[in-house]
Amino acid sequence: MGVVLSWEKNQPQPASIEPLVKATAEDMERVNRAILAQTGSEVTLIPEVARYLIDSGGKRLRPMITLATARACGYGGEGHVELAASVEFMHTATLFHDDVVDESATRRGKQTARLVWGNQESVLVGDFLLGKAFRMMVGVGSLVALDILSAAAATIAEGEVMQLSTARNLDTTEDEYLAVVRAKTAALFSAAAEVGPVIAEASRSERAAFRSYGANLGITFQLIDDALDYGGATAELGKEIGDDFREGKVTLPVLLAYGRGLDEDRAFWLRTLIEGEIGDNDLVHACHLINESGALADTLERAHHYASIAHDALAPLSETAEKAALLEALAFCISRAH
Amino acid sequence: MGVVLSWEKNQPQPASIEPLVKATAEDMERVNRAILAQTGSEVTLIPEVARYLIDSGGKRLRPMITLATARACGYGGEGHVELAASVEFMHTATLFHDDVVDESATRRGKQTARLVWGNQESVLVGDFLLGKAFRMMVGVGSLVALDILSAAAATIAEGEVMQLSTARNLDTTEDEYLAVVRAKTAALFSAAAEVGPVIAEASRSERAAFRSYGANLGITFQLIDDALDYGGATAELGKEIGDDFREGKVTLPVLLAYGRGLDEDRAFWLRTLIEGEIGDNDLVHACHLINESGALADTLERAHHYASIAHDALAPLSETAEKAALLEALAFCISRAH
Repeated sequence: MGVVLSWEKNQPQPASIEPLVKATAEDMERVNRAILAQTGSEVTLIPEVARYLIDSGGKRLRPMITLATARACGYGGEGHVELAASVEFMHTATLFHDDVVDESATRRGKQTARLVWGNQESVLVGDFLLGKAFRMMVGVGSLVALDILSAAAATIAEGEVMQLSTARNLDTTEDEYLAVVRAKTAALFSAAAEVGPVIAEASRSERAAFRSYGANLGITFQLIDDALDYGGATAELGKEIGDDFREGKVTLPVLLAYGRGLDEDRAFWLRTLIEGEIGDNDLVHACHLINESGALADTLERAHHYASIAHDALAPLSETAEKAALLEALAFCISRAH
Repeated sequence: MGVVLSWEKNQPQPASIEPLVKATAEDMERVNRAILAQTGSEVTLIPEVARYLIDSGGKRLRPMITLATARACGYGGEGHVELAASVEFMHTATLFHDDVVDESATRRGKQTARLVWGNQESVLVGDFLLGKAFRMMVGVGSLVALDILSAAAATIAEGEVMQLSTARNLDTTEDEYLAVVRAKTAALFSAAAEVGPVIAEASRSERAAFRSYGANLGITFQLIDDALDYGGATAELGKEIGDDFREGKVTLPVLLAYGRGLDEDRAFWLRTLIEGEIGDNDLVHACHLINESGALADTLERAHHYASIAHDALAPLSETAEKAALLEALAFCISRAH
């Protein structure tokens, strides 16, 4: 991958998520406490199942974004903590339901909750977290933030339904795939980044800037994730790859490779991804096709495109530690695949 | 069943739900339009699946309660329509998830959506409706109503999780069963009845009265439903019975019959409900045991108890057409099982 955007060149060191972690560390402590408090239930199964996933080492990128955008807009109140916790709950609820819908076996290297406790428990604990998320948001008292987050909840579900129809269809266009990503992934990033400015009573243009940053970071994040599942530009040793391939997920690298492929390549994708007949060397061959066709490089190129939009969205805003941290998190997101 | 409460005696004719239907007819037209508008999605599967259940002839008792309680408190605005539609969406979302969790084959005499479209679609369309429900509520702009309904959403999910552990356990106590019913069923009735007064800016005591009416109507409703599944006091010809029995649901009539049963009766319940070995004559025998042990009569007795509380809750309130209609709906609910 030779493409390096100018704003990446300017980084003296490799981009890191650390500045964002540091900028939000104190607030994240409070988010974690809110999460613990809100997963409490007299129904003991609920905290057990909920914390299994919540404590499983996700990066908590979304709540950090809410915290950082609120602070970047000069917010001095308390509401951003509850909103950030709500965003993480919404995300976690989605993961519970996703794992049921996708019949997934592992998530973040652990058995999925649905395999440990069951599909029923996963659906219901997801619903519980969604209810709690809304209740926390209500406590903050911003109807605008509530509107943004509840709209995102409906959009995410729409995206998941769209995905059901693209999931096993190699004739999906890139635009159709992108519509799924916008709804399924980018909508929550976008909402997470917008509700910070909203409670900070930031200007219309600041709010729009952060919303755009969030949406395009979300798309970038997903496309990089898609690329990493086939090893990224340089397959990291020991990094688990091939989950999407085994689950038959039609992602952008596959769509590009399929579209550019010869008849025999297309037959390969149909047999493996669609019919699920996957032999020992098929993942290696899939990675080979994706590399050779330029599909991987171009997926990263597309990710760069959205990252650039996210980067430029924040350009007009005044320089704050949080803005710098958010931009570096964006660069870090891209750098994961290199 | 000889027990007739005094407020039932005073009914000149058999109790009917018609007065409630009439009192809310105009508003319900608008609720139905709101529901149609909000189930729209560019993802064509969503309206198709959502309307399959929404249009399937439910009584829409919950939204009627929201409309009637708002009007009873003199509400003259528009928000009760959106709140009522939200309540129905929350209820419908629960049904979608319930059918997946319970692996149900039929609902209201139709194949369940999960069998027509799939479990995945049912989970996700439920999520979509929940997101839309919250968005509609947000549009109404009452944070208090939002708090009540979002708390109910979490409580319903808690009740469903509790039910997973009682579902196949005949040692469940009546109190434990009641805790499930309060959370799973009564919480939404209670919220539906409270948000009406809330947006009408009714007094604290009016609000508490309607909340109590809703909660106790909800318990009554569920217990009567449980009794009807074993035929009620006089099994109606042609009425579908035995769904709970076939699905192995541990309901109050069963718990009472089991608790009072001889060893051979307990063995029968264990074999049929818990182990799912159900032969041709087992439903008839189950109905016999439930009748003979007095479990059915006493389930109806318990239902009367909660209906009385609901009835008395409204006693201090001024007489309005809506109050009369709500009381008659309560009496109707009881009369279904006689």
